[in-house]
Amino acid sequence: MLVTDFGATRGDGVFETIGVFRQQALNLEPHLERLGRSARMLDLPTPDTGIVRDAFHAAVDAHEKVDEMMVRIILTRGLESADTPTAWIHARQSPDFSAERAGVRVVSLDRGVSSTVAKESPWLLAGAKSTSYAVNMAALREAARRGADDVLFVSSDGYALEGPTSTLLVRRGDRYLTTPPSAGVLPGTTIATAAQVIGERGGQLVEELMTVEDVRTADAAWLLSSGRLAAPITELDGTALTVDREVTVELCREMSFGLVTDI
Amino acid sequence: MLVTDFGATRGDGVFETIGVFRQQALNLEPHLERLGRSARMLDLPTPDTGIVRDAFHAAVDAHEKVDEMMVRIILTRGLESADTPTAWIHARQSPDFSAERAGVRVVSLDRGVSSTVAKESPWLLAGAKSTSYAVNMAALREAARRGADDVLFVSSDGYALEGPTSTLLVRRGDRYLTTPPSAGVLPGTTIATAAQVIGERGGQLVEELMTVEDVRTADAAWLLSSGRLAAPITELDGTALTVDREVTVELCREMSFGLVTDI
Repeated sequence: MLVTDFGATRGDGVFETIGVFRQQALNLEPHLERLGRSARMLDLPTPDTGIVRDAFHAAVDAHEKVDEMMVRIILTRGLESADTPTAWIHARQSPDFSAERAGVRVVSLDRGVSSTVAKESPWLLAGAKSTSYAVNMAALREAARRGADDVLFVSSDGYALEGPTSTLLVRRGDRYLTTPPSAGVLPGTTIATAAQVIGERGGQLVEELMTVEDVRTADAAWLLSSGRLAAPITELDGTALTVDREVTVELCREMSFGLVTDI
Repeated sequence: MLVTDFGATRGDGVFETIGVFRQQALNLEPHLERLGRSARMLDLPTPDTGIVRDAFHAAVDAHEKVDEMMVRIILTRGLESADTPTAWIHARQSPDFSAERAGVRVVSLDRGVSSTVAKESPWLLAGAKSTSYAVNMAALREAARRGADDVLFVSSDGYALEGPTSTLLVRRGDRYLTTPPSAGVLPGTTIATAAQVIGERGGQLVEELMTVEDVRTADAAWLLSSGRLAAPITELDGTALTVDREVTVELCREMSFGLVTDI
């Protein structure tokens, strides 16, 4: 990558990270859709899905065969002197996520913006997966300073949003709740798989705004992401949450195509 | 730059852009100070000012001699696999800024966050010059869609903040106002030079929060930046503003070491 690429100088790009388990990609199509959605939100050319999909598979095939991989697709605005985007795909072996799949301690942190910001101020790019992730990374460092593992972002009007790199899933009895994308969060790519697992258990997945208190008093809660899978929240702002071991294992098993069978 | 650099994958870095006029750098020391301040806000190692200064001068000397240059210093968190930051300096000839120095049409756009965010939520990095600038770039595209040249960001509590790449300066009689950095804006590196010009004219520069209405009803207003210098606001949200030609010329002349003598 050249140092005059807008991706390097301005974080002016979009990305996706896709979990791959024994060569099988988790929800590749939702990731490709979301990449196109993010690109449109940043006024970037919409990537050709067929070309990106082929390149994705080529990257997976070219990597040494390992149980768990994370494959990143990045599309930037390209060189300052040109008018052509830059894109690349990078496959790597996943780190060991076993500790996170057993549970994460989470702190809630203000994201500063209202849950209506995506609709009212689209130039703030809420809900676009841009490479301008410095705040997401800073929030994770703040969590570490507070002795926690991860973050639950909260809107200025008091709603639980998402993690810096994950989607919120909350259980209240047979109802499973996740944040509506209209609140300015990323549409979770793992949510379709979660919905399937939940449906098979006789539960129902609904998009609904929750307060931090709603999450703290839930029967269980998770942060979902494509590589780490379902990370149960064991603690929120110092309050212990129940870990639903059975559902966590089912979620992780389904998302990993049977590879992860225990937590 | 490698594609596994956090600067490329997460916009996880800080930067400065310094205007150079006939080989003389505008306010290099305030830029170096601000680079260190941004680095600390992102928990990056503080760069060695002496080394960066020497590298800056080497970059200027290595470039073909031109009237106006912009020199960018970037410091990123470095490779994902290592623990060492990446840094580079890049000098280039400035584009022709004569149109902007004659005047810019500006639209006010919500930045979504309150003017108290820097103090209350430091992980949101308000006031750090990070390379996560996708929102700044998106705001400029939104301005273009509205037929304007630039943006005045507004806090959710109604205060005029700064431009995506510039500092706000407003004149009301002999009082010249700029946004206090405590409101979550970048401390402007050109402000010291502006203060000098203003002082020589018998005026006074003060840091004070302003509303958009305050700017709209001012005697004159500018967006200051290191390469473009003082760009007078000719129009704010469709309302014409008076251009103070004399002060604009004085600001540009002083900032460019006498190179820019008219607008």
